[in-house]
Order: sequence, then structure tokens, then C-alpha cells
Amino acid sequence: MTDMPSADLRKVVRLKPKAEARAIRHGFPWVYADELVTDRRTQSLPPGALAVLEDGERRPLGLVTVNVKSKIIARMLDRDPEAVIDENWFAARLTRALDLRERLFDAPYYRLIHAEADGLPGVVIDRFGDAAVIQPNAAWAETHIDALAAALRKVTGVTTVIKNGTGRSRSLEGLPEETTVLAGGVSGPIPVLMNGATYMADVMGGQKTGLFYDQRPNHAFAARLAKGARVLDVFSHVGGFALAALAGGAESALAVDASAAALTLATEGAAASGVADRFATRQGDAFEVLEALGAEGARYDLVICDPPAFAPAKPALEAGLRAYERIARLAAPLVAPGGYLILCSCSHAADLSSFRNASARGIGRAGRRGQILHTGFAGPDHPLLPQLAESGYLKSLVFRLD
Amino acid sequence: MTDMPSADLRKVVRLKPKAEARAIRHGFPWVYADELVTDRRTQSLPPGALAVLEDGERRPLGLVTVNVKSKIIARMLDRDPEAVIDENWFAARLTRALDLRERLFDAPYYRLIHAEADGLPGVVIDRFGDAAVIQPNAAWAETHIDALAAALRKVTGVTTVIKNGTGRSRSLEGLPEETTVLAGGVSGPIPVLMNGATYMADVMGGQKTGLFYDQRPNHAFAARLAKGARVLDVFSHVGGFALAALAGGAESALAVDASAAALTLATEGAAASGVADRFATRQGDAFEVLEALGAEGARYDLVICDPPAFAPAKPALEAGLRAYERIARLAAPLVAPGGYLILCSCSHAADLSSFRNASARGIGRAGRRGQILHTGFAGPDHPLLPQLAESGYLKSLVFRLD
Repeated sequence: MTDMPSADLRKVVRLKPKAEARAIRHGFPWVYADELVTDRRTQSLPPGALAVLEDGERRPLGLVTVNVKSKIIARMLDRDPEAVIDENWFAARLTRALDLRERLFDAPYYRLIHAEADGLPGVVIDRFGDAAVIQPNAAWAETHIDALAAALRKVTGVTTVIKNGTGRSRSLEGLPEETTVLAGGVSGPIPVLMNGATYMADVMGGQKTGLFYDQRPNHAFAARLAKGARVLDVFSHVGGFALAALAGGAESALAVDASAAALTLATEGAAASGVADRFATRQGDAFEVLEALGAEGARYDLVICDPPAFAPAKPALEAGLRAYERIARLAAPLVAPGGYLILCSCSHAADLSSFRNASARGIGRAGRRGQILHTGFAGPDHPLLPQLAESGYLKSLVFRLD
Repeated sequence: MTDMPSADLRKVVRLKPKAEARAIRHGFPWVYADELVTDRRTQSLPPGALAVLEDGERRPLGLVTVNVKSKIIARMLDRDPEAVIDENWFAARLTRALDLRERLFDAPYYRLIHAEADGLPGVVIDRFGDAAVIQPNAAWAETHIDALAAALRKVTGVTTVIKNGTGRSRSLEGLPEETTVLAGGVSGPIPVLMNGATYMADVMGGQKTGLFYDQRPNHAFAARLAKGARVLDVFSHVGGFALAALAGGAESALAVDASAAALTLATEGAAASGVADRFATRQGDAFEVLEALGAEGARYDLVICDPPAFAPAKPALEAGLRAYERIARLAAPLVAPGGYLILCSCSHAADLSSFRNASARGIGRAGRRGQILHTGFAGPDHPLLPQLAESGYLKSLVFRLD
């Protein structure tokens, strides 16, 4: 059940004498590569190896996982340097995470584990009823995947466990892309109930884990504005905002996405939600569709743009902010007077203030003015460590335009 | 109905040649005293006078209200320099604001006008069913109060209109304190339904307009965490968080406040909500009560601290942040393991990042660690101009503690 040697045989890694141990003592969960002594012994550790982290004076700080291939060279697993990372250890973390989700949600559809803040660094687990999808985005989770999956089945009762090994984070850790079924199995998309709508999650072939739970409260806010509204949902994926708006009483919704597969799932979701007669799709590049709709003189009471991350990391920030401004400039003219515009960013590098300024600039360049009604972030099944809270990636701004 | 002279007799005020007109053209609603030419003619304008604002090249920018006694020497009323500020003008602004609130809320209990963002600079109007309370916090609103009150009655159908002339903003404008009934009348507190609870709003004698609508979504979030919980609501005012938590299924709630009058209203609210048997109060200084509860070894599953503004303006920032840290340090030990701590700030000067850091520091000093589940702001009946969005005053952080 565990590949841990007994505590006295544990590897040790050490902070450089000048490295600041205070942040780690206060809960910061990461050690960057330039803060650790990387002698030959440390260099030889396989990715995901466990080790006791010591400060410059050889005082133990806790048990970490080490990956010398990653900029984040060590991640804190347990403040107890003698912790044993086995099925029981995973079960304790999962139980704590599950308690919160069961308090928050009536049905078992949520992000169960949100990495560091839920005590499992680099690990994401989304739950879809009886199925769960694990994203092991750090090397240690790959080597402990069996204990993790076993604990997951025991704690939650899920029968199907899928490992989704795709995405940018894994390549930063030097991990290969692969998606496999660890337990049970699925045939076709899983229906997921959220905000009164039914979504279709393709947990085997979809983007990320198949559905974006993070936007749930922002979908709910949009639904409050949607009664009787003509809705345009750009970058709709499987219909996140559009189906919530229709469930909230929208007159019609048009979902725009580049992916035909996503739009097929959105259409299936609309049928399952009983709103197919008010739902339409348009496949294509979002910028081109926005321009085309503008040229057609189309008007909507509620327009949502929820694009992929234009500024995932610092070097892309300026170009990303220009892209957000362009989205706002193209979307604002499509909003009827007194209507609503929801602009989202899931870019780590673009903070709230920069994103808001870019959005306001784009709206202004379109000759429109407005109020901000609401600023939303990812839902509470996506907790944050206070030490990493600046990096809250998802922002959703709700404007009302004059 | 209007005291406006015809357009050709209008006073003119002018930006200094070097003053930047671009921000105002892009929607910034204020002119600071050092940006305006303050010759004798301008100095002689009575507080609240209307004037056409021109840029350094004498191009009109819009109609403003001028108050040479205020740091904000001019506020934009209308981009149309020929606008006539009469009952119809107020009615148009009120109708636009009402449309949004009626879309957002099922019952007529909300902030109807949130100053600049709702097009009425310095004016706040809260609605309590058939009654409305106007806070004219800028001089122009005092001089136009009759047209405003008449439009308010016509647009909303309220029968009672109260002018609440208290608070810090008025003194910055050189306005006196006074609360008067402009129409109708009230006898005793008004019951207000929010989040399944009934609150008692003392619109004549209470703090601000009698009830704080801004925390409504944060009350709702707390209620989701409250099932079966022992709740402590510090700085409870009329029971904002406590009554919502009890409506959400809390086992018990203790409300702490320095004001006996507020606690009496909270107790009346608990009775009206049908939760009096689970509700208790403790009058006293919040810091002292927190310390006393700590000494008693009291433990709660959900603790909320929603203090008055410790850092209302920049000079008070450092002392204010220390006070927020102290609140967090005193409150964290009262939270049972795995329980929840909600910390709020309504300080303009303390931005989200500073407040979050102060809170996390206090929690750490109490020897606790936690996740942030939710970051909430004021509800959508408190919109913001994008140009003033940095100053969003209310922040609510929801922590789960280990």
C-alpha cells in the first residue's frame, strides 16, 4: 500500500543557508529551485520522490515531494516529517475535502480536490456522481496513484475512477500525456445537474476533466439576469452560461464555440434540460463570429464571453490583455441598451485590476459606458491557500451597459 | 419643479489648462479641487450649484454640480451640458435603477440608488417595501431633494420617504446632520425579508439607513455553511449574519454588539424569524467579548466578524490593518477544528490584498491554518463605476480553519 521507507531511512533535502524558511513555516507550500541545495544526491532523486525538508540549520520543516525537473522543486505534503503517505493518509485528506463539499452542495457534482488548498499538491479531482476524474499534475501523485484511487473509492463510494493526464501543468513536471480508466468505466457523457440545467460531461475525451465546475456561481448570477433575455454565450464550451440562462428563463440562447464536439455536448445538454427549442449553436472562431454578429447588427440582452486563458503566464500578459480588450470591444456593441455583458478571464497572469481595466477600455472603445454589478471568482469547491490567493485565476465581471 | 436657469444663463467652471480631461471623457465622474480653475466667480458658487464643466480649451464636458467646500469640487451629473435637472430627469435615473433591482430581487427590499454608479452622485437610497430612505451626501442633492423625492414616489410607488442626513460623507461636504420625514411616516421598525430571515430596520433612528443591504450575498454564503452549526456573530448590528445562519439551519447563534438598541432589534428579528429559541445576545465591546470568550474556552463552528470601518481613509490604514489582524487573532481560537471563520472589512482604504494579508497573519498568530473558500463583495444592488472599482469598500473572506 505504500512505497515509503521507514522514517529513519528518509531522504533529506535542505534549504540554502540564505533561503527564507519563514514563509514555509507560515504555510507557503512551495520551494523554488533556487532556494534548495541541489547537490548530486538531490539531483539523483527520481521525480516525485519524498524527502524531509530541512532549513539551513538542519531543522526539519516537514515532508515534501521533490521534482528536480520542475521550477517548483519541492511541494509540502505534510508538516509532520514522519508522515506516511499511504491510503490512510489520502483518506484523511479526502474526508476533510468531502465534508466541505457535502456541506456546500446538495448533489455529488463538484471539484473534490483543488490541489494545494485541499492538502494534495498538484492534484485535482472532479466528481461526477459515481465517477471521479483525477488530474495528477505533479510527479508524486503519479507514483502514489494507486493509494490515492483506492482511498478515493473508499471515502466517496465512487465506482469509476479515471486518470486524466493532459494539460500544461504536467509538461512543466515532465509528465507524459495519457488518460486511462483506473476503476469501473463510463460509456458516453455523464449528465451533471447544476443551477437547474443538465450539462453533458465527456470525462474521457473532453477539455480538462470534462466540465468546468469553477464557473458555477457565475453561471448562477447570469441566470438571475436572464429572465426573458436574448442570450449570446461566446466560448460556450458545453453550454455553461447558455444552459444556466435558459434554465433561468431566457427567451433564447446562442452558443458559440470553435469546437464542434463541445457544441454537440451543449446541444445534448439543452435537450436533457428541456430547453432545446430555445437553444442554438454557431461553430467558429469567437473573434470572427463576434465581428460577423456585429456586422449583422445582432443585439442581445445578455452577452457572455468566457474565453480560454489569453495570459496563462507572465510573458503572455500584454498580448493577453490586448485580447481581453478586443473581446470587450467586439462584444459591447452586441449588447442592447440597458443590457448585460459578462466578461471572464481564467488567466493566472492577469490580475483582477488589469483584467477590469482592459475590459473597461474595450467597452469604452466601443463607445459604451456601464456599471459593474458583480465581481465573481471560482466557486467554493476551488479553495485557495491564503499564501497563494493572489493567484486566484478566475475572474468574472458583470457589467450593465447604458 | 426646477430651479435651473435656462441653458444660456448657466454658470461655467473650467478645468485648469494642465488638468487631464481624458479621464472625465472616459467616464471618471469627479473633478478634484486642484484640477479646477477656482476664480472668484467659482468661489462664489453656493454648495451644490450646477454648472457646465469645460476643458482647458473651453469645450463643454457636461453638466456638473460644484461644491467648493469639498475635495471633490465637481461631480458629473449629465454628459449633456444642457440637461435639465428636474423631476423627469430624476425619474429617468430612478427607472433605470429600479429595472435592475426588479430583475435581481423578488421583493422590494434593496439599495435602489448607489450614488455615482446609478447616476446620482453622492446620493444613496435604500428601499424598505413602501418606504424609502434617502441619504443626500452631496450638497446638490439637498437643494434638489423635493424633485428627487417626488420622482421617487412616482417611479417606485413608495408612500413614505425619509431623509437621513447623518454620516461622515455629509460633513466632508459641509452639510448638517438631520433626519426628517419628507412624505408619509413610519411607526417603529420595518420588517425586511432577506435570505429567509426577517430583519428589523429602524429607518428613523438606526445606523446609516437602518439596515446594511450590502452584505446580503455574504449572509447567504454563510447560511450555506451554517447547518447544525454553533454560530458566533460579532459586530452583529441587527443580526445580519446570525439570523441568516439560523434561517439556514444553525443550531444556535450568539450575536455580539456594543449597541443595546441594535441587539434589541436583532432579538425582535429573531422572534419574527421564528428562531428566538436558538438566538442569544451579548452586549459589549467586541474585542473584550472575543477575549472573554477565548478565556472561557468557547468554541463555535462558524464565527463571523463584521466590524465597522477600521481604515475608512488612508491615514488610518496602518492602525486599521492592525485592528483587522487583532480581530482575526482573537476570533480564530474560537473556531472549532474544521470550522469556518468569516472576516469582513468595509474600509475603503484597506484593499483586498492588504485585508487578506492582515487576516491571514492574525489567523497564523493564533496558531491556526486555513483555506480561503470565498471572497465576496457588496451585492449587485451596490454597483460600481469601472473607474471607481478599485474603491469597492466591502470585502468578505470566508476561511475554513484546520
